[in-house]
Amino acid sequence: MDRLKQFEDYRQKMNDRIFEIDHIGIKRFFNLDTNAYEDGPLSGKTKELLGLVASMVLRCNDCIDYHILQCVQTGWRDEELYDAFNVALVVGGSIVIPHLRHAVETLDVARERQQLD
Amino acid sequence: MDRLKQFEDYRQKMNDRIFEIDHIGIKRFFNLDTNAYEDGPLSGKTKELLGLVASMVLRCNDCIDYHILQCVQTGWRDEELYDAFNVALVVGGSIVIPHLRHAVETLDVARERQQLD
Amino acid sequence: MDRLKQFEDYRQKMNDRIFEIDHIGIKRFFNLDTNAYEDGPLSGKTKELLGLVASMVLRCNDCIDYHILQCVQTGWRDEELYDAFNVALVVGGSIVIPHLRHAVETLDVARERQQLD
Amino acid sequence: MDRLKQFEDYRQKMNDRIFEIDHIGIKRFFNLDTNAYEDGPLSGKTKELLGLVASMVLRCNDCIDYHILQCVQTGWRDEELYDAFNVALVVGGSIVIPHLRHAVETLDVARERQQLD
Amino acid sequence: MDRLKQFEDYRQKMNDRIFEIDHIGIKRFFNLDTNAYEDGPLSGKTKELLGLVASMVLRCNDCIDYHILQCVQTGWRDEELYDAFNVALVVGGSIVIPHLRHAVETLDVARERQQLD
Amino acid sequence: MDRLKQFEDYRQKMNDRIFEIDHIGIKRFFNLDTNAYEDGPLSGKTKELLGLVASMVLRCNDCIDYHILQCVQTGWRDEELYDAFNVALVVGGSIVIPHLRHAVETLDVARERQQLD
Repeated sequence: MDRLKQFEDYRQKMNDRIFEIDHIGIKRFFNLDTNAYEDGPLSGKTKELLGLVASMVLRCNDCIDYHILQCVQTGWRDEELYDAFNVALVVGGSIVIPHLRHAVETLDVARERQQLD
Repeated sequence: MDRLKQFEDYRQKMNDRIFEIDHIGIKRFFNLDTNAYEDGPLSGKTKELLGLVASMVLRCNDCIDYHILQCVQTGWRDEELYDAFNVALVVGGSIVIPHLRHAVETLDVARERQQLD
Repeated sequence: MDRLKQFEDYRQKMNDRIFEIDHIGIKRFFNLDTNAYEDGPLSGKTKELLGLVASMVLRCNDCIDYHILQCVQTGWRDEELYDAFNVALVVGGSIVIPHLRHAVETLDVARERQQLD
Repeated sequence: MDRLKQFEDYRQKMNDRIFEIDHIGIKRFFNLDTNAYEDGPLSGKTKELLGLVASMVLRCNDCIDYHILQCVQTGWRDEELYDAFNVALVVGGSIVIPHLRHAVETLDVARERQQLD
Repeated sequence: MDRLKQFEDYRQKMNDRIFEIDHIGIKRFFNLDTNAYEDGPLSGKTKELLGLVASMVLRCNDCIDYHILQCVQTGWRDEELYDAFNVALVVGGSIVIPHLRHAVETLDVARERQQLD
Repeated sequence: MDRLKQFEDYRQKMNDRIFEIDHIGIKRFFNLDTNAYEDGPLSGKTKELLGLVASMVLRCNDCIDYHILQCVQTGWRDEELYDAFNVALVVGGSIVIPHLRHAVETLDVARERQQLD
């Protein structure tokens, strides 16, 4: 099982568990988070790219994985994503490099998946 | 003199001073930074929006001011920028709110300027 | 006019402006933020102290000012707040010290206000 | 062996190793850190909750695990901890979500342990 | 009165006030902080440079000012400090640039002072 | 295979992959990063120590591993590195402790390697 699948399974399992906890504030936050990436004055596609760059400069691998999957699904091409990676790298500095490695690897896995479909 | 003008003047003065220092690494970094926002697979316009959201979640007012001016210049509309502010707010949390206030104020000043032109 | 009053006026002015923008996501976030500090399984008083320490380790002076005012209003005593400052200092390190200075000054101003009331 | 036990064993092993290094500054820091959570004007119980929220907004899983174990031991109930999680989520934003998942899982493991005792 | 003098006066005033508060943990932290930059296996001079770069990547202007004054006093030359600025810039990224501007300005003011002495 | 070797192999594999992507901005950033640690007004040895402390306060284990290997190779002694660890700990606070554990373990592994050579 690939690393991405493990992440997705764990993410789903724990999101279900958090839902079960049934804290009104936490549930509303999750809704707000989902809604933030829906089409509006900016397209959902553009907002996923914003989420990806934000995740890279804040250096969160799980968030990077999630947004790369969304970026692939909403139709961003590799060259465009590399250009976004570059913005994140310049803004965030060399401390972002380990997360750039992670992002590139995740993108490669996501593309392999697409070819298997 | 408005707050934005003060920022721009100080920014220019100190960038000139940094240029004068003539450190090869620092100069190359500044070049790299400028180039990161030029048209490529992603448009410069899109990259400015990425830079803005990165600046907001990293909570840097000077960077926010710079990228808002660039976003206005590259043609983003207010509603689109508000949508980007929202992504930054949800990703970065309430700690971003003081910078959201700053961003909204800067955007208003930038629009006033446009009308005076 | 003291520094705290200036902060409060600016905060109110810009919150009104943000409200006027009328972005559904941003408005919901502000609601969520307000609700997070209301009485629940934890008292609002306890949650304000959590908000204060979170603001200190994340090094946001505006957030510190806001939560100190709330902590004073919900009845925390100086000695208790100093103890919370200490936790923030140990967790966040010497980089927190400038914000500790700010927090101590804000607390002193807030107490002067109380005596004038 | 559960994830928490692995963390505790590694933590103990490396703390012993750090102690062996015998750097006076580092040793004093560890003492200061321990003392910061002892009863004072604020109870140790309250301070553990502050430490937990600080760890969540600073996004450190090891620190979260440590403070959750302490919070469970000092008697915080699940509903109270969920309320603290919510404050951390709202302050720190969606970038905290992977750490919220981790915290919820750790809390569940810690409760299972209690039942085995 | 120059910006540095204002910072030093405020810093002294608030450090005195914090001392007056007399919280044992906070006082010990201040001691630990002072001791961390004294001569040991590494010279105090080297440690001030470490403190400066740490302050730059963590983006704290007050900390930058403090460590630049110490770096000047312990004998670092401008070219060496520019080289350290460059490391901070590359590690921390363009988000460090506003703090680089601040650092360069502070260093210039510190050198003017030296000439007046 | 030790943890460090795994890190080095993964780092090399992904750096090769990133090189293959052939994004001019990203490649220039990698060059800039390499050059930042070469001898100049400050020695490469000193700059590696700066990079290490920056990595610790920014809490990046991969960056810590990389710079510890470089620090060992450029001739820093254990006592000197412990002194640098202490500066990072005091500046960055207890949130750095898990990364201090990691750094101490990495240094021990690096020294074992040296003895095997």
